[in-house]
Amino acid sequence: MITFKEALNRVLEHPLDLGNELVPLMQSNGRYLAEPIYADRDFPPFNRVTKDGIAINFDGAIGTGEKLQVEGVASAGMKQLSLVDDKNCIEVMTGAVLPKNTDTVIMYEHLTIDEGFAVINKEVTKGQNVHYKGSDESQGTQVLSKGTLITPSEIGVMASVGKPKVLVKKVPKVCSIATGNELVDIHVSPEPHQIRKSNSVTMLSSLSNLGITGSSLHLLDDKESIEKGLSSALKENDVLLLSGGVSKGKFDFIPEVMEYLGVEKIFHRVAQRPGKPFWFGVHKESKTVIFSFPGNPVSTYANYHLYFLPWLYKSWDIKTEERSAKLMVDLEIRPPLTRFIQVKSKWNTNCLEVTPIVENGSGDLTSLSRADGFICLEPREEVYKTGELVRFVNIR
Amino acid sequence: MITFKEALNRVLEHPLDLGNELVPLMQSNGRYLAEPIYADRDFPPFNRVTKDGIAINFDGAIGTGEKLQVEGVASAGMKQLSLVDDKNCIEVMTGAVLPKNTDTVIMYEHLTIDEGFAVINKEVTKGQNVHYKGSDESQGTQVLSKGTLITPSEIGVMASVGKPKVLVKKVPKVCSIATGNELVDIHVSPEPHQIRKSNSVTMLSSLSNLGITGSSLHLLDDKESIEKGLSSALKENDVLLLSGGVSKGKFDFIPEVMEYLGVEKIFHRVAQRPGKPFWFGVHKESKTVIFSFPGNPVSTYANYHLYFLPWLYKSWDIKTEERSAKLMVDLEIRPPLTRFIQVKSKWNTNCLEVTPIVENGSGDLTSLSRADGFICLEPREEVYKTGELVRFVNIR
Repeated sequence: MITFKEALNRVLEHPLDLGNELVPLMQSNGRYLAEPIYADRDFPPFNRVTKDGIAINFDGAIGTGEKLQVEGVASAGMKQLSLVDDKNCIEVMTGAVLPKNTDTVIMYEHLTIDEGFAVINKEVTKGQNVHYKGSDESQGTQVLSKGTLITPSEIGVMASVGKPKVLVKKVPKVCSIATGNELVDIHVSPEPHQIRKSNSVTMLSSLSNLGITGSSLHLLDDKESIEKGLSSALKENDVLLLSGGVSKGKFDFIPEVMEYLGVEKIFHRVAQRPGKPFWFGVHKESKTVIFSFPGNPVSTYANYHLYFLPWLYKSWDIKTEERSAKLMVDLEIRPPLTRFIQVKSKWNTNCLEVTPIVENGSGDLTSLSRADGFICLEPREEVYKTGELVRFVNIR
Repeated sequence: MITFKEALNRVLEHPLDLGNELVPLMQSNGRYLAEPIYADRDFPPFNRVTKDGIAINFDGAIGTGEKLQVEGVASAGMKQLSLVDDKNCIEVMTGAVLPKNTDTVIMYEHLTIDEGFAVINKEVTKGQNVHYKGSDESQGTQVLSKGTLITPSEIGVMASVGKPKVLVKKVPKVCSIATGNELVDIHVSPEPHQIRKSNSVTMLSSLSNLGITGSSLHLLDDKESIEKGLSSALKENDVLLLSGGVSKGKFDFIPEVMEYLGVEKIFHRVAQRPGKPFWFGVHKESKTVIFSFPGNPVSTYANYHLYFLPWLYKSWDIKTEERSAKLMVDLEIRPPLTRFIQVKSKWNTNCLEVTPIVENGSGDLTSLSRADGFICLEPREEVYKTGELVRFVNIR
């Protein structure tokens, strides 16, 4: 049995080159940029008026009586006007192009305008209230780098620089496969010996948070249907996420069928809880990567976060940071198993604290909804003490 | 001009009763539960075998030779079997119903099975390796409470208890309205005096993170088209989010047209930066709530987070917590304006630290993509010092 660290390293040795795809800007939220984004023009693209008021030629107007004839009105969206007489002014609105032959804007609050003449009531600084062309970004400057997570902020920036379509990292085709004769659909009223499928829907909704529209499959515990189902799933997907069917039971045919179908087993069984029977392999022909998690919900979900997500970010060439939290109880984690423990997190001012939730083993269906994440603790002789910083994996 | 605190209070005095709706479970991710969820049966629903191996009747089998005849095999998904002879055993697989007349499971690792007989090689504890009926949750127990944010964990729980459809808080109908003659579509190559629309797409993608499919509208700076557009938008939406058209410019017709259309102005102008010209009103007839933000991107986005989101959570009756972060520079915030300052956040072990980003006033189109959020600082005489905890509003 290999350690968690070793297992994770082996998983990360098998990234997939998923490629890129062009998507409409409005569908790129939550995706990762596969191209750098450049300013297609100066920002702002012109000397932009930032206050409603008048624009003047400072040297021509100030100190020459300060009663300025209004030559016209420039509003946002109008072509640039020109001030004809240096001693006059043009009314300007926020967002307008600063008129030619002017350099300074005085806001209405500091003016009186009467019968076509403006009188300035406050001291003026040359160049005030103008947002200068190119002062935010010059044309050609990189404004977003490759690998950036796209959020509404980035979407706004890309709209500004004219990217109706954007190149993003392609998501893998993923199939979530539940195994077991005991499983029935959500809308079915189960017989006493049956339970409803929950892992598939948890997986599929987790995948949807990554922009992945996964498919799902239910395999019964007989060799023939497993072989048939896996065979076509291997052809059609980049990743298979299985739950159940990898422990030592008489009907746990997955490892055997995988081998038969040409999947190379990278490892089986890891010194960890939950998820000891975790099986990982790669299909030699199609390069499909198979994460075969044990069937109970907490185990499946923990291992999804601890193996599948790091694998996905590695495949995308995205760097992620591990997060720490302060442990609020003492915990004894004796060798040899690495433990993933469900915790509730709490903000104490600006710091994150975690407390294990009370749960009834990894088969506890409802405990996940009481947890905010997992802490990941390596086995060791000394007790983990209250106040110690531990690795925290957020699931919310 | 009212203060930020007063403005926020007035906004929160106008929540909308948005009601509830039934959605398919798989579409409920990210929504808020509008009903409590109960266990429809015991969890587990039967005494569940947790290891592959054999089930025995402890009192009948242990100490009587320990060579037990195998009566049969019980796998997951099979109806409950019965052990006929107390001295015998039944092979059982993980997830199976514990057979009648048995109470203890011994895993394969601690057994030898040969020619239909099992020999136990390790000490056995009565009741081991059984996950007892109802030990996680009893039938009728509340497993999720009203108001819970639905994530994949909750979806798994609801699948388990048989909720193919779930009652969630209804999202408002929202229209994002951009105003201004200077605005052109994203795919258009703008004239020198024009800029592309970015606020609408930023708003729409932010709304999509809340499960809201918003609509959008572009109004030109003339009274007639503003009146026509607003009039139908008021009828068709619960919320209008406007950007631009509320400052003191000659073509800022919004406040005037709103009044004409029967919208009650709750306030106009707030002692804050960015967003001083913020206008807020409620349509008397339709009850539509109108947030009219100033037009520059940072101002719009800050005020969306500082006013619209709290308003939405209030309308949903969802409690949210304010978050703090440690300020990493000194900042002087002189009266009278409350300041919303764009910051980069950084985890220092388990604690959050923030540093203002360098930006060029609130019209800076690309600064949002360099920021992780805003800090919200009330004006005061003393300097905000490095190390001080300040309110942090996350935008990622």
